[in-house]
Amino acid sequence: MKQPDRIAPEETVGGPTAPTAYRKPNGDSPRTAGDPICLPPGISSARFKTFLLRLAGICGEDNVTAITKEEELHHESYLEPSKCHDMFSIMNKEAFIASAVVSPRHTGEVQAIMRLCNEFEIPVWPFSIGRNVGYGGAAPRVPGSLGMDLGCNMNKIIKVDVDGAYALVEPGVTYFDLHNYLVEHNLRDKLWVDVPDLGGGSVLGNTVERGVGYTPYGDHYMMHCGMEVVLPNGELVRTGMGALPNPKADPNAPAYEQEPNESWQLFNYGFGPYNDGTFTQSSLGVVTKMGVWLMTNPGGYQSYMITFPRDEDLHQIVEIIRPLRVGMVLQNVPTLRHILLDAAVHGDRKSYTDSDKPLTDDEIDAIAKKLNLGRWNFYGALYGPAPVREVMWQVVKGAFSQVPGAKFYFPEDQPDNIVLQTRHNTLQGIPSVTELKWVDWLPNGAHLFFSPIAKVSGDEAVAQYALTRKRCEQAGLDFIGTFVVGMREMHHIVCLVFNRKDPKSCEKAHWVISTLVQDAAERGWGEYRTHIALMDQIAQTYNFNDNAQMKLNERIKNALDPKGILAPGKNGIWPQTYDAKSWAIKRPSLASLR
Amino acid sequence: MKQPDRIAPEETVGGPTAPTAYRKPNGDSPRTAGDPICLPPGISSARFKTFLLRLAGICGEDNVTAITKEEELHHESYLEPSKCHDMFSIMNKEAFIASAVVSPRHTGEVQAIMRLCNEFEIPVWPFSIGRNVGYGGAAPRVPGSLGMDLGCNMNKIIKVDVDGAYALVEPGVTYFDLHNYLVEHNLRDKLWVDVPDLGGGSVLGNTVERGVGYTPYGDHYMMHCGMEVVLPNGELVRTGMGALPNPKADPNAPAYEQEPNESWQLFNYGFGPYNDGTFTQSSLGVVTKMGVWLMTNPGGYQSYMITFPRDEDLHQIVEIIRPLRVGMVLQNVPTLRHILLDAAVHGDRKSYTDSDKPLTDDEIDAIAKKLNLGRWNFYGALYGPAPVREVMWQVVKGAFSQVPGAKFYFPEDQPDNIVLQTRHNTLQGIPSVTELKWVDWLPNGAHLFFSPIAKVSGDEAVAQYALTRKRCEQAGLDFIGTFVVGMREMHHIVCLVFNRKDPKSCEKAHWVISTLVQDAAERGWGEYRTHIALMDQIAQTYNFNDNAQMKLNERIKNALDPKGILAPGKNGIWPQTYDAKSWAIKRPSLASLR
Repeated sequence: MKQPDRIAPEETVGGPTAPTAYRKPNGDSPRTAGDPICLPPGISSARFKTFLLRLAGICGEDNVTAITKEEELHHESYLEPSKCHDMFSIMNKEAFIASAVVSPRHTGEVQAIMRLCNEFEIPVWPFSIGRNVGYGGAAPRVPGSLGMDLGCNMNKIIKVDVDGAYALVEPGVTYFDLHNYLVEHNLRDKLWVDVPDLGGGSVLGNTVERGVGYTPYGDHYMMHCGMEVVLPNGELVRTGMGALPNPKADPNAPAYEQEPNESWQLFNYGFGPYNDGTFTQSSLGVVTKMGVWLMTNPGGYQSYMITFPRDEDLHQIVEIIRPLRVGMVLQNVPTLRHILLDAAVHGDRKSYTDSDKPLTDDEIDAIAKKLNLGRWNFYGALYGPAPVREVMWQVVKGAFSQVPGAKFYFPEDQPDNIVLQTRHNTLQGIPSVTELKWVDWLPNGAHLFFSPIAKVSGDEAVAQYALTRKRCEQAGLDFIGTFVVGMREMHHIVCLVFNRKDPKSCEKAHWVISTLVQDAAERGWGEYRTHIALMDQIAQTYNFNDNAQMKLNERIKNALDPKGILAPGKNGIWPQTYDAKSWAIKRPSLASLR
Repeated sequence: MKQPDRIAPEETVGGPTAPTAYRKPNGDSPRTAGDPICLPPGISSARFKTFLLRLAGICGEDNVTAITKEEELHHESYLEPSKCHDMFSIMNKEAFIASAVVSPRHTGEVQAIMRLCNEFEIPVWPFSIGRNVGYGGAAPRVPGSLGMDLGCNMNKIIKVDVDGAYALVEPGVTYFDLHNYLVEHNLRDKLWVDVPDLGGGSVLGNTVERGVGYTPYGDHYMMHCGMEVVLPNGELVRTGMGALPNPKADPNAPAYEQEPNESWQLFNYGFGPYNDGTFTQSSLGVVTKMGVWLMTNPGGYQSYMITFPRDEDLHQIVEIIRPLRVGMVLQNVPTLRHILLDAAVHGDRKSYTDSDKPLTDDEIDAIAKKLNLGRWNFYGALYGPAPVREVMWQVVKGAFSQVPGAKFYFPEDQPDNIVLQTRHNTLQGIPSVTELKWVDWLPNGAHLFFSPIAKVSGDEAVAQYALTRKRCEQAGLDFIGTFVVGMREMHHIVCLVFNRKDPKSCEKAHWVISTLVQDAAERGWGEYRTHIALMDQIAQTYNFNDNAQMKLNERIKNALDPKGILAPGKNGIWPQTYDAKSWAIKRPSLASLR
């Protein structure tokens, strides 16, 4: 977006602490012993030490960690992710790194941290657990931000209500946690959780970032109900019916401990403006509790896979999907996966080829044949009692049978097909981490997601596939991707796998994604979510009417967070206290990669 | 909410025009000839005349009407509603009245009007068509506001997309218009519109006020996609994917005329904060275009009615509804109606009784018997091919058969049952105005809606019914109501019918609703929407944590609308330029009604 040259607005920033500088990245200022790898912008070593002491006074010493040792950079496992940087970094590891990480023990501490950060004018980057693979993990946009790890201590399932079919959770509750709770309490025959591909992420965090799953409840934002939010100034709001006090609540308890209204998780909208969406993909509040609707057991379930033999079947397949999905004959969020995504779950690249060039169509055909899969593979499910499923299956099978060579499989037909067995679980809300394996396609595999929204149209699917595959191949990468079919569109998820220990490979991935963002915008395609390194660029593509949306977002940001404390730069929104230009990310050129 | 004594913040108000007073109601200042019935607060007769001339310069003289004649107050028909006051006013007709009404011809004029109103510091109250019966019609909260009639000239169906199953509409498009469009273009076999009880309202307006309908697409907010909004300062935003330019758009055209992004109506969320909800039930923007998802023809349909003989069946019925609805066996938004709502459609009160006391249970039983209906009557529908419907019907019939005396009817069984015949249409998206008739229960019938959210629980339904009936009867009114069953809750709609030409009757209705708002809050029940006279009171009940939500709403309001031009007081949100206390509505006391 256009970032006019601004003067620090003195009426809103500043205050009792050091005079506010217009925040720019730190230069090569000398570091004293014990300093973190990266200090917050404009904050001296001494002042930072004072800040950490105050922070420890709020949350206890054990819950404050300064990122001082190089070793802190080396957490690289999804199961034990780094809390301070992006384990799948495409730039150097210090490009996006926290100065320290704090783990509040309860919402009252989140409020106190927000007030402290305002006092010290130190940016804070909240995360639920720190997974968020492909989009930046736990890493902050502004290096030197305080990382706020909400998941470490705030991980209670506050309530599962069977009658109302909902749960109320804290940020640290993972899909595994919630599913296991249902299993352990013998509720799995009544209630299902909708889960994304990987079950280790936060239910709340995924929803707030507008992630998706694969049952009929796959639109996680649509299926949330009620939020508790700490605003940048430390105030606590409950949205929707949560704004109405429960008469049984103890008025002397802190607000965040008060028994909530019984309708909080039953009705989203409450009275007056419905603000929940404003707290998603945003830097306007820290969500500390969230309601999530659970799917009731549909009384029957059958997953299936359909394989399509030819690359060029894509057009016809998508044209068949559209009316079925919009008519809810495809009842859930199905996926149409490129063969290499499935292949990568079954084995790494070396197991298929010795070539270091992008795989040719002939080579890809050979892999499909070897795996007994199609060039495109569709995973769906039928929900309901047998007679309902039979009707749906007749329609589904009839429609896709129009594609010559389409083959239909149930999981029981293919016990060794890891992907089908996994999707069989995922599509009924049983979480797993099996699909992590495709990241190992390359040695030291890591990935970025390029995630444009696509019309459910053969023409658009083919055009997006052609473009993204071409750009991948230009950079020497294989195309790996999937179309995730929502209510009226597809999230086209392109998985850019790279070797995280090879700087050239990282740069290639960065070149591909930044080039694709521009390519896509020129065609009217926009991304639904992105890695921190791409946030500015993507925000700048949503620039209708002279960046009217960004101006609106900035106005709200500055009203709620005048000092620009909370997640500055998140999704391209820079507070008035930051010089956006000086935080710009340099895009690599293709020439430099040769 | 708490409204601290505030001083007009001089850095945001004022400007090139007259010095800004802190807005209070006009006193009995002398009126000159040609003055409207009510001037905008703080605006002189001469200045108002200048304003109208400037307004006519924008929209043309024919599209500006000063409300100068008493006759303007007498539009009292749903089909030709007043544009300046509430035809179902519970206070005197001038309590909520516009100074003038302007009908912009296109969005560019809406932008110009917003700028002009900022220049003159005149409040503006937008409405789509001015129906909104039971909630205040077209009347503004602040008397003397400029009414902005968006429906008069801006009533185009911009697009119906069959593949994507959506429409893009302007504010003046009614449910009838959209349905008729489908019929006329032979699209009704493909697409259905979800309609509310009355088809004359605006599709956009109903959604923005978070109204509901009765098909599986009954949650209108959930099923909208994409908004174009004029902000209080006149800037134009498109939300979601609309913020991404269409590369084919003419960059020289005004923004509002530019060809929108092709995904605007396919994917709600776009990138970054999702702000649509903030523009619903709010005073933060004027929605000038909106996308609405259309339901695809489900391939089969069967509506039904189930009657339950006893008043005390309510508990059991609701307990049966809950699991069926949350499990989507009840596929749509069904309603459980009190007998008197149906009775009032079939005839006025006089046709049943000569008593002027609230009807007794015996009298109500007699009416039910006469009409061959139950004390409670449930209207639902089955969607899908015959085998699917049969499975659903077995479950539905089996469940409700547990209630002794339950009877099951299809519309073909009861050709003379006006309600069943109407619901048969409504539940498949065919609009009507038949149910207007229940308003004629009393002579000169008018109504208010008291609309609390209820858990889908027998205990809560019974408690809400007992309370609301008791309060109605205390004021000498009959209880007329319906439970509208959403995804996880019920909108309990209590229809307070009164005689609009009898001031005592109006006052009674006002007493009942204001008393019920307080009663409900004490039990933890909150309303989802309300009449302008009750907005402050209801907003004050959503006061968790020292009115944290209201403070948030005020902060956003003041950031986007520093002069408080757009719909001041809407849903209890008063801008910083208004002295909220001086606009308070006096609640009648029961004693005064005797």
